[in-house]
Amino acid sequence: MDPGIVRRIASRLHVDVGTASIREMSRVVNAVEKETGLRFVRMEFGIPGLPTSPIAREAEARALESPGVSNVYAPFDGIPELKAEASRFVKLFMDLDVPPACIVPSVGAMEGCFAGLALAGRLKERARTVIFLQPGFPVNGMQARLLGLDVASIDFYDHRGETLIRAVEDRVRKGDVCAILWSSPNNPSWIVLKEDELRGLGRICDEHGVLALEDLAYFGMDLRQDYLKPGEPPYQPTVMRYTSHGICIISSSKMFSYAGQRIALCVISPELATRNEPALVSSLGTPSVAHALTHGVLYPICASVPQSPQWGLTALLEAANRGDTGLWKPAHEYARRAGIMKKHFLDAGFRLVYDNDLGEPLADGFYFTIAYPGFERGGDLIEALLPYGVSAITLEAAGSCRLEGLRACVSMVADDQFETLAARLRKFAEDHPAGASR
Amino acid sequence: MDPGIVRRIASRLHVDVGTASIREMSRVVNAVEKETGLRFVRMEFGIPGLPTSPIAREAEARALESPGVSNVYAPFDGIPELKAEASRFVKLFMDLDVPPACIVPSVGAMEGCFAGLALAGRLKERARTVIFLQPGFPVNGMQARLLGLDVASIDFYDHRGETLIRAVEDRVRKGDVCAILWSSPNNPSWIVLKEDELRGLGRICDEHGVLALEDLAYFGMDLRQDYLKPGEPPYQPTVMRYTSHGICIISSSKMFSYAGQRIALCVISPELATRNEPALVSSLGTPSVAHALTHGVLYPICASVPQSPQWGLTALLEAANRGDTGLWKPAHEYARRAGIMKKHFLDAGFRLVYDNDLGEPLADGFYFTIAYPGFERGGDLIEALLPYGVSAITLEAAGSCRLEGLRACVSMVADDQFETLAARLRKFAEDHPAGASR
Repeated sequence: MDPGIVRRIASRLHVDVGTASIREMSRVVNAVEKETGLRFVRMEFGIPGLPTSPIAREAEARALESPGVSNVYAPFDGIPELKAEASRFVKLFMDLDVPPACIVPSVGAMEGCFAGLALAGRLKERARTVIFLQPGFPVNGMQARLLGLDVASIDFYDHRGETLIRAVEDRVRKGDVCAILWSSPNNPSWIVLKEDELRGLGRICDEHGVLALEDLAYFGMDLRQDYLKPGEPPYQPTVMRYTSHGICIISSSKMFSYAGQRIALCVISPELATRNEPALVSSLGTPSVAHALTHGVLYPICASVPQSPQWGLTALLEAANRGDTGLWKPAHEYARRAGIMKKHFLDAGFRLVYDNDLGEPLADGFYFTIAYPGFERGGDLIEALLPYGVSAITLEAAGSCRLEGLRACVSMVADDQFETLAARLRKFAEDHPAGASR
Repeated sequence: MDPGIVRRIASRLHVDVGTASIREMSRVVNAVEKETGLRFVRMEFGIPGLPTSPIAREAEARALESPGVSNVYAPFDGIPELKAEASRFVKLFMDLDVPPACIVPSVGAMEGCFAGLALAGRLKERARTVIFLQPGFPVNGMQARLLGLDVASIDFYDHRGETLIRAVEDRVRKGDVCAILWSSPNNPSWIVLKEDELRGLGRICDEHGVLALEDLAYFGMDLRQDYLKPGEPPYQPTVMRYTSHGICIISSSKMFSYAGQRIALCVISPELATRNEPALVSSLGTPSVAHALTHGVLYPICASVPQSPQWGLTALLEAANRGDTGLWKPAHEYARRAGIMKKHFLDAGFRLVYDNDLGEPLADGFYFTIAYPGFERGGDLIEALLPYGVSAITLEAAGSCRLEGLRACVSMVADDQFETLAARLRKFAEDHPAGASR
């Protein structure tokens, strides 16, 4: 395809593809597909490509037929049935003792992270900086900006193990940090924090009174281990084991392919939930941390999480807790695709940017990261790739210090596109011989 | 009931009934009901008491069975089908020409108001004050606090007609006002702004570059007029007719008894939507007002509105647009209840606080406001009423300047409780003779 077509459409939509957010890139690709008729290999968007389990859909349909569901506000801290089942889930899959009162649903992990950041920014006077362990989910940066919080970035690329812990603690010592936010398995590098790293982060949060915000958007999806047998080790790695000052956010979007109905769980350290922080009163109306989060933040944002998805998630957790392994097919499917797709990229001369996990090979999962010889800016690389019918977003847009790379998501690429992908990458490589100056 | 029981339970739950929010009062009453076995006449909570139309529930169930719904994020500005049907609705019931691009769904009117306030606070440098036309929905005050906005109150009690417009314009002239927020029909006084008042507010917003935030939580529910015949006057009164600088938020919670599924529509003035405001760039990433609202605010809060309620609301709007009058039963039912309940209060010696609508009798609707001779503080009045098994919240909690009053909501009180209410109020009156000093 003539690169001019992509440039013209992006310009018409006021999008700079080099810095485009996920949704902006999606709009550009939709428009190019529509105008040219070419079907893209779409790797910009982390949409779960697999159907939701009928367990959830049937529970929602049943709830909608019951009185007092679609017409009545849910409790702002969640329906008791969901909270109880979530408490069991957290015990069986994370080996954590968290009472139902310390687990509240949110309208997706997005609202959970937003609420966690809003709470963090008010926990301590004059502490308005959040450390983001990067790369990360680009929208977290938009959330911080909307809340008027400052962001300090520490990148996994050159910070793992003791180096990571030392860098985080040095930054926290300045005294202006209210929270540390990260995802693990990490979007987009797919590195997974080790127990020692989680222990170090947890200790820092306890010692310095900083909030740990752990985004478990990809719960159980590091398939080098089987974390998905209820009540049996190994358990999902989590900072919550090592801190009394954390909130972890468990998304149902990828784990259960439930993104469309927008529901996640916020698990609060019981010690934190019951703590009183006087600084909260002026902006959230109460010193109690749990009450501040549910009544002071989540309630004024959306009133409550829609009712029927709460019943859907309750049914999914109940099935997981009794050992229904059919639920975990999505994770395996994404890993299979990642294995194939990574190979096609490597065969065409690409390399992985985040290429190892503290010395171990990376797991195959939802995302991987790529670069190509001679391209120093991911923006130039994606601009060159789009005319071949391959889309992604830049690592720069994901907060990475590695400006040369792209984030590739496997979820929307099914088997019937693998050969197309391989052929398009071969053509790209022919047209862009490695080592040529650009 | 011994008043000590209520006091003890409220104190155990850390709630001051005199300033309690709706949800806090609900928790107290739930606990008192559980401990004493007494069923309260509950007027604290604006839960729609009537079932949702099967039109919505069936559309949701169908959507959940369709591919690409429960597993896939909706567009962050709403599914096209909903936006198109909403544009038709706004034409047929409000006589407004608003293209689908200028209508976005939110997770209930709560998120719509929150997003509107977040946008307002960034539209102009150094304008961080919102004028609330009071009384109002108490949670709007919590939203402003969470967003770090200042609130200036102007009360309908002593400001209507020209007096209202003059007071608003005087306050706006100070230069620090970013928005004016109100609900009409008004929660809790049930006054309804007249066309002249809306025209004045619209003019002020245009002339001073201030955002009009009109909360239409009770769309069509002023039953002195029939606003609910599609394409025929009279049309729902709205400031949007008089300003190019407004966002009106249409809730489905009461109009369609759909509160549990949390969905509302934000209608943006087309002129405003397409405007560029350079002040937005630093915190919302774009100068375009519509893009700032959808991509800069709504997207980082919840990613998108859950899919199935979008399909449910699409079906409801489609039915309304083709003239299905069965949808409007809730409004008539609430009015019927209000007529009966107000009479019981008046017969027992109570009076209405907000007792006329710019010279006209108030409509019967979802709320009314009451006071009782000898009680100067609503907090004292509700503390005295609760032991009789009658609950409400104070007007003070609703932002009113009338500290003596209570807000009563009719929605949860069905026919089988009317006689109980009358008897309890008679007993209260016997125990509290009017004119006695307290």
